[in-house]
Amino acid sequence: MADSPVPFAASSSRPPLMPLDEAIAVLLAKAQPVLPTESVGTFDADGRVLAQDLVSGLTVPPRDNSAMDGYAVRVADCAAPGAELKVAQRIPAGTVGTLLAPGTAARIFTGAQIPEGADAVVMQEDTAAVPQEGSLGSVRIAIVPAAGQWIRRAGEDVAAGDVVLRKGERLTPAALGLAASVGFDRLQVARKPRVAMLSTGDELVMPGEVAPDAMKPGAIYNSNRFFMRALLYRLGCEVNDLGIVPDNREATVVALRDAAEASDLIITTGGVSVGEEDHIRAALQALGELQLWSLSMKPGKPFAYGSIARSSGQGACHVTGLPGNPVSSFLTFLMLVRPFLLTLQGAARVAPEAVKMRADFDWPRADKRREFLRVRRNAAGGLDLFANQSSGVLTSMVWGDGVVDNPAGRTIKSGELVEFIPFASLLG
Amino acid sequence: MADSPVPFAASSSRPPLMPLDEAIAVLLAKAQPVLPTESVGTFDADGRVLAQDLVSGLTVPPRDNSAMDGYAVRVADCAAPGAELKVAQRIPAGTVGTLLAPGTAARIFTGAQIPEGADAVVMQEDTAAVPQEGSLGSVRIAIVPAAGQWIRRAGEDVAAGDVVLRKGERLTPAALGLAASVGFDRLQVARKPRVAMLSTGDELVMPGEVAPDAMKPGAIYNSNRFFMRALLYRLGCEVNDLGIVPDNREATVVALRDAAEASDLIITTGGVSVGEEDHIRAALQALGELQLWSLSMKPGKPFAYGSIARSSGQGACHVTGLPGNPVSSFLTFLMLVRPFLLTLQGAARVAPEAVKMRADFDWPRADKRREFLRVRRNAAGGLDLFANQSSGVLTSMVWGDGVVDNPAGRTIKSGELVEFIPFASLLG
Repeated sequence: MADSPVPFAASSSRPPLMPLDEAIAVLLAKAQPVLPTESVGTFDADGRVLAQDLVSGLTVPPRDNSAMDGYAVRVADCAAPGAELKVAQRIPAGTVGTLLAPGTAARIFTGAQIPEGADAVVMQEDTAAVPQEGSLGSVRIAIVPAAGQWIRRAGEDVAAGDVVLRKGERLTPAALGLAASVGFDRLQVARKPRVAMLSTGDELVMPGEVAPDAMKPGAIYNSNRFFMRALLYRLGCEVNDLGIVPDNREATVVALRDAAEASDLIITTGGVSVGEEDHIRAALQALGELQLWSLSMKPGKPFAYGSIARSSGQGACHVTGLPGNPVSSFLTFLMLVRPFLLTLQGAARVAPEAVKMRADFDWPRADKRREFLRVRRNAAGGLDLFANQSSGVLTSMVWGDGVVDNPAGRTIKSGELVEFIPFASLLG
Repeated sequence: MADSPVPFAASSSRPPLMPLDEAIAVLLAKAQPVLPTESVGTFDADGRVLAQDLVSGLTVPPRDNSAMDGYAVRVADCAAPGAELKVAQRIPAGTVGTLLAPGTAARIFTGAQIPEGADAVVMQEDTAAVPQEGSLGSVRIAIVPAAGQWIRRAGEDVAAGDVVLRKGERLTPAALGLAASVGFDRLQVARKPRVAMLSTGDELVMPGEVAPDAMKPGAIYNSNRFFMRALLYRLGCEVNDLGIVPDNREATVVALRDAAEASDLIITTGGVSVGEEDHIRAALQALGELQLWSLSMKPGKPFAYGSIARSSGQGACHVTGLPGNPVSSFLTFLMLVRPFLLTLQGAARVAPEAVKMRADFDWPRADKRREFLRVRRNAAGGLDLFANQSSGVLTSMVWGDGVVDNPAGRTIKSGELVEFIPFASLLG
């Protein structure tokens, strides 16, 4: 690893490539201690990481109940189609009926408790009401019901004492619903990560500050700041956007030192490759720990992990240094920083999950690095490749709906199965 | 369609099932006119639907630039490994070099413009610097560079005049980055949908109000309200949560009429099946248009679309009536309401996208309705089925990571390919 400043490379040897899985393992081991926890309302817990096992005090549904609007009956009374039964009671949801006498039916509604004695529900559409002045009348049952039909059994969803959600689960809308369904109006979750982000590079200009036709030669708009901020918000982080830091060592040191005080993580983009114009590296070496990795990852080779001790004495702030090229920056965020932020919150499952899909393209040139090829699912159920796989080409991340995770040294022939990671699985 | 109130069903004929695709088509046709547009900062536009074509005024990259830290050279000067070239200039990113004289190299950094005369970049790791007092020294080039290597070409990402993002595109972090990369600091997008939501059912209790061990018989916690609100926020809506409306017609009429004034859409859960305890239907018939559908969808048969004219005279408010069972409610939201809300914003692509995956389970009983089976991807690259497919079982939506979209009348044998819709693709 090139971890000391070398004004001009002294030898032609390249730094050895670090396997991506090894880098991720080293990085995730740094996410200790995990963030403190806090209690939040269940309404506000979407996307947060649960810090407790949720044990149900409830059986759901609490008792056998009707899955349909219709009539609760005794199957024995309906041996042939057309049985006519006296409607002896009426059980809306939220009320409790009485013992169903033989030869009678109970008018019942979805969610209402099945009365004792009944062993099936006949849905309304399979019946014909026979009105009768001054009573609930009778009902003709057009079918022969099966025992248990349209009855939702007590405990079918959850039994009392069940762990319905485990510590480390990242909460989704469905999980919030499940927590609520057993009575939890508050949940213990990890505190939101506080993330500071900064970009480096004198060539960077903010959109809106200079019009396209007035851009100086060499100047480029800062795009990393936009997707990075959005990615962090989607991950539920509190974001402190420090903007573009001038390409000099003093400014970089000051920005990093200040940000470390109130952040759990500082994300930098640019300034981590071996060129001497990169001040992030020197600033981090001056302020704390620094590891520089040449990842076996394409796009996305240079990556830095560092930490800065807080002057308050309250632990250290993590730093991840991402490459400046937009696609490299985006993908190293998804593959390394996202799992890191989830681990920091105690999440149990943090790795991107791939599915096998058919490549409808050839990739004839193997690379010594593990590649993340931008692809899009096509109507034929396969994957199409974006023509330009350069790391500067952000259009590939918009055109594509995911990446093929292609091992180092591997070529792809059209028709082969490859590992596809959909962006959708990484954006929430 | 059962669109008139029938206290007791007068015949045993069931309402004909409406194919789901037909229901979606009818529903989406109602999403006219689309919402007005507004200008927002690009930083704040994640998840919004673009209301303009974005035409680039910029070529990205504007000029050929270096993809690496290293040396810009003339390939003709490096015919054999070990060529030594005088370092005649130094070009950090953001600066412009001069014509590269034959026999010289330019120290160059990632993103910096390639100087005239140079036709390749040699990455630093393939070089050895030869320092020299009072000058930039020389560099030994260890390899034989290929013409064009490590040069990112002007316009490789975007050419001036290109439409980089089209009207109707739902913005993602990558799209925000792309918009910023061509200089857009503001974007014209559809206004956020204003959505009111209410649940009906006297059996519903809010978590926190009654402890699990104090729940009355027949009472259940309202879980729909929790996932629905989270789903709406993820879709970028403004949410007006009206809570639980008592099961009587007057309260329902008042709640709906008031909500219509300031909402684009009212979502109700519960109260749309054919039972007479359902007041949503009667209230909607009193207030405006109502269509009741029996969808060919399992879970999720009963569904209502309605509209309520605003007393202000400013158009009408849409209403979607979802079934009360949690899983039915959740899935009808994903399959019908989500596309409706996206269409209302002018989004071009709104349908859930399925991928073909292998079923690792049997589903021997065909249903006359199109089924959405809760499944989870397994380590073997197939799909496992959640044991309990009842519509009351919200655990299936937490355990599962998607649904199999199984056509009506179809059985599944283990090993067959099925249509899998991952939840992740529907939650953002």
